[in-house]
Amino acid sequence: MSTFRDAAKDGLSKGDLEAVLRQVGVERYHHLHPYHHRMVEGALSKTEMQAWALNRYCYQAMVPRKDAMILARATDPAFRAAWRMRIEDHDGDDGWSGGIARWLHLATSLGLDADSVKSERLALPATRFAVGAYLTFCTDKTLLEAVASSLTEMFSPAIIGERMSAMLARYDYVTEDTLAYFKHRPKQASRDADFALAYVLDHADTAERQQAAIDALVFKCDILWTMLDVLQHAYGEDGNIPPGAFRPEHVQ
Amino acid sequence: MSTFRDAAKDGLSKGDLEAVLRQVGVERYHHLHPYHHRMVEGALSKTEMQAWALNRYCYQAMVPRKDAMILARATDPAFRAAWRMRIEDHDGDDGWSGGIARWLHLATSLGLDADSVKSERLALPATRFAVGAYLTFCTDKTLLEAVASSLTEMFSPAIIGERMSAMLARYDYVTEDTLAYFKHRPKQASRDADFALAYVLDHADTAERQQAAIDALVFKCDILWTMLDVLQHAYGEDGNIPPGAFRPEHVQ
Repeated sequence: MSTFRDAAKDGLSKGDLEAVLRQVGVERYHHLHPYHHRMVEGALSKTEMQAWALNRYCYQAMVPRKDAMILARATDPAFRAAWRMRIEDHDGDDGWSGGIARWLHLATSLGLDADSVKSERLALPATRFAVGAYLTFCTDKTLLEAVASSLTEMFSPAIIGERMSAMLARYDYVTEDTLAYFKHRPKQASRDADFALAYVLDHADTAERQQAAIDALVFKCDILWTMLDVLQHAYGEDGNIPPGAFRPEHVQ
Repeated sequence: MSTFRDAAKDGLSKGDLEAVLRQVGVERYHHLHPYHHRMVEGALSKTEMQAWALNRYCYQAMVPRKDAMILARATDPAFRAAWRMRIEDHDGDDGWSGGIARWLHLATSLGLDADSVKSERLALPATRFAVGAYLTFCTDKTLLEAVASSLTEMFSPAIIGERMSAMLARYDYVTEDTLAYFKHRPKQASRDADFALAYVLDHADTAERQQAAIDALVFKCDILWTMLDVLQHAYGEDGNIPPGAFRPEHVQ
């Protein structure tokens, strides 16, 4: 496994930079994580599935804020107009008719209480720290790095396809209706990833900037990986649920 | 176990607020964590001990920045003069003669490479996210909350005493010299905790502010708890070391 730490040290062609970015996905994306493997094998308990939905909600709810931060830092109106669609996708016309609402629907379909999910109070602290780190990254780093950190969307259509079919086939309490969120995402993610990739390939025009873009994508993979790590630690076989976090008995 | 979420809803006397804050420590401080228990029982592998030192370094290295952020937000010169001592304690006269240097010494005494520890590159991503969340908290929340989040120092002299004697007794590679950091801390921590507690008791003068102070201390306990959770998950029996993080083979 590569660390990708010197991947751009001599400077890369656009084609080679794209190849390195795609390789980050091959080696570091969370489709490799045991929790994901267990999900698609049908091995997650319902509590584990609920905990996944409840914790991932924190991420979904933060994404449009992260995108608004990128919008706020972008000086090119055409860039902003393109990036703005991401916020619309997540919030919808009224805040509760887009991706966040569909994720909330997924969570409540699994038996969770909507207010409890929205409050984020039962999420793992480590989930909140990871989600916060992503927002801080998009606030503090360069615009190029913030955009590059979104490139995990290059890899998401594949994982969503795998996840949807497995969830429908292997968990009798999961229906097409539960998974409405995923029906919309692959098309949006592909459109967003194409735009972000073109931006990164155009703007990463020195070896240093290329390395920064690669590092940003590794960072983002670390965020997603950590979110599954902490679920596995808390809700997997050993059951190390930290104080204050979601427990099965929270579901009536 | 209490969530402490409504602990101050009717307003508390100073004495009762102090009692609630101390109770947060009783129920939520990381002296209750299995990783700490295993450390004091002599059950940690050397890799686990090294991983603990290496990851905890990220926390130590951030603390004076967190304290500088608090300094930057304080308008009272007398408060700043008192709080400034914390930065001096960690950085020393020249940056490398205080607490950070002593923690680095602890890490290198365990066989780790100083540059590698200082680079923080082999730390768990989740450690970085937790440490970053603490800095962000002290940046974004009220000064009262930032001060209250430091009150885990009320509980640290006890855990340090337990840790020091156990490490010396149960790990033959640990010497008095290894643990120089801990020799200085209890006195500093008690002085700092007394000051911070008096500040919180004086300034938490509404039920809402009292609750915010309690929540801040719970948050800080979550940070410390998470740091041990992610060590346990990565380096405990199951060995789920995330991509890019410290592995035993990194030590020559």
